[in-house]
Amino acid sequence: MAEAGKLAILAGGGALPGQIAAAAEAAGRPVTLVAFAGTTVEAAGFPVIAARIEKLGALFADLRAAGVTHVVMAGGMRRPALDPAGFDDTFLAVAPRLMAALQGGDDGLLRVVIAVFEEAGFTVEAPHDLVPALTAAPGFLTATAPGHADRADADRAAEIVQGLGALDIGQGAVVAQGLCLGVETVQGTDAMLRFVAETARGARPNPDGARGVLLKMPKPGQDLRVDMPAIGPETVRGAAAAGLAGIVLAAGRVLVLEQDETLAAAEAAGLFVWARDDI
Amino acid sequence: MAEAGKLAILAGGGALPGQIAAAAEAAGRPVTLVAFAGTTVEAAGFPVIAARIEKLGALFADLRAAGVTHVVMAGGMRRPALDPAGFDDTFLAVAPRLMAALQGGDDGLLRVVIAVFEEAGFTVEAPHDLVPALTAAPGFLTATAPGHADRADADRAAEIVQGLGALDIGQGAVVAQGLCLGVETVQGTDAMLRFVAETARGARPNPDGARGVLLKMPKPGQDLRVDMPAIGPETVRGAAAAGLAGIVLAAGRVLVLEQDETLAAAEAAGLFVWARDDI
Repeated sequence: MAEAGKLAILAGGGALPGQIAAAAEAAGRPVTLVAFAGTTVEAAGFPVIAARIEKLGALFADLRAAGVTHVVMAGGMRRPALDPAGFDDTFLAVAPRLMAALQGGDDGLLRVVIAVFEEAGFTVEAPHDLVPALTAAPGFLTATAPGHADRADADRAAEIVQGLGALDIGQGAVVAQGLCLGVETVQGTDAMLRFVAETARGARPNPDGARGVLLKMPKPGQDLRVDMPAIGPETVRGAAAAGLAGIVLAAGRVLVLEQDETLAAAEAAGLFVWARDDI
Repeated sequence: MAEAGKLAILAGGGALPGQIAAAAEAAGRPVTLVAFAGTTVEAAGFPVIAARIEKLGALFADLRAAGVTHVVMAGGMRRPALDPAGFDDTFLAVAPRLMAALQGGDDGLLRVVIAVFEEAGFTVEAPHDLVPALTAAPGFLTATAPGHADRADADRAAEIVQGLGALDIGQGAVVAQGLCLGVETVQGTDAMLRFVAETARGARPNPDGARGVLLKMPKPGQDLRVDMPAIGPETVRGAAAAGLAGIVLAAGRVLVLEQDETLAAAEAAGLFVWARDDI
């Protein structure tokens, strides 16, 4: 946490905004949360600025009035339904860029969002720079370790996700016995794992062979200040329900949310969690 | 149908083997079907050779005894469970190559299967070379036509499937409003469409905007003698259930099974079917 300055957390759902707020406060840094209309923010005890995306100028004014110099985006946010009647001038000025980016992949949209905040004078930080412990160091995070076939499946999955990244889709894939059983799309990791759970019967050539892995990593060149890939307890439950052997992560570049609970769930289900620094 | 010689159809499920058999017979060509254990073959009225993959030498002998010089693979086949106790010498000789290929994508396996038949002296033909009417000529196959946004979604989907092909996965994708909602994996097109039907609620940024397209095309460089991409009435039903606007095909390189029923189903559901020669 090298940067000083009051921090505003643009908060999505889940536990991450609260974790970052707590870590920033523990480091002696003033912090506030920004809750967008339609998003439920779980971070009791911190000041909250209510915001609407349509009123971007009002949000910038509120942030400056509160002394905010730095922002971080944290937690899952759905693409919102916008009320055109509510657009303020600041929103209208950036709307053409946002609308153009909305037609493309996720990265394009989020790059525009970062640019808009930077042009307004804010410094945009990355969650894992604020709280390095949110990611995993290289190695096996569980007592269960991958076998030879699991390592081969992980290599194949990494090849696929790297290839998909060039297309600006996906931060995840499921591979079993060399076969791709799932590719992450905008519906997210949990939806992909449910798909695998429902469809993989018979798709693995050898019913007694390798059960497969979930691999999560950023797209090549992805700006980790937004939409950093993440796993959490729900990911572990989904991977177990899909009959997988384990989860493979890019060390230092994938958020492990609620780390104690996540790893305990993996141990309980007999899944390995493996952070690799070579993918 | 330039080639003479008796034709054996290595028959998978569905209507395609029967269609090819009827077309070959109508062209004056002798034809037999090969039914592998575990596969239900729908092609009444044609001679059938029963076969087991484990007894590959026996199959080659039966084909030669029947005067077969040419083979074509047609219809969906699942990766079979093999009985090691039943392997004959011919199977054992090719088993190492088959097993190695089984660890990779579909293309690798099917390329080995073609090579094995060619090395045994058979000529392997492509379904659409035998029956050109199985594919579609360029243009709109339905009265319903794609709009501007549908064309953009089709372009994006083609870019994705071409990129996936380099990774040896997928012959299909679903894109709506520029976002990828589904990537075809080994579970096939119908499973992907069910996934989209179940998960796409809220994934389209504009609920009143473009509904999206299913795109089907071969992988770049794919050998069309095996595993040629296909659509049929079930594909249309799946695309309609997924709320899509239409289906886009590579003209001449995607099988349109039960063409009359398929296109009638698309018209009834208000879906367009568009065969493109520029993808």
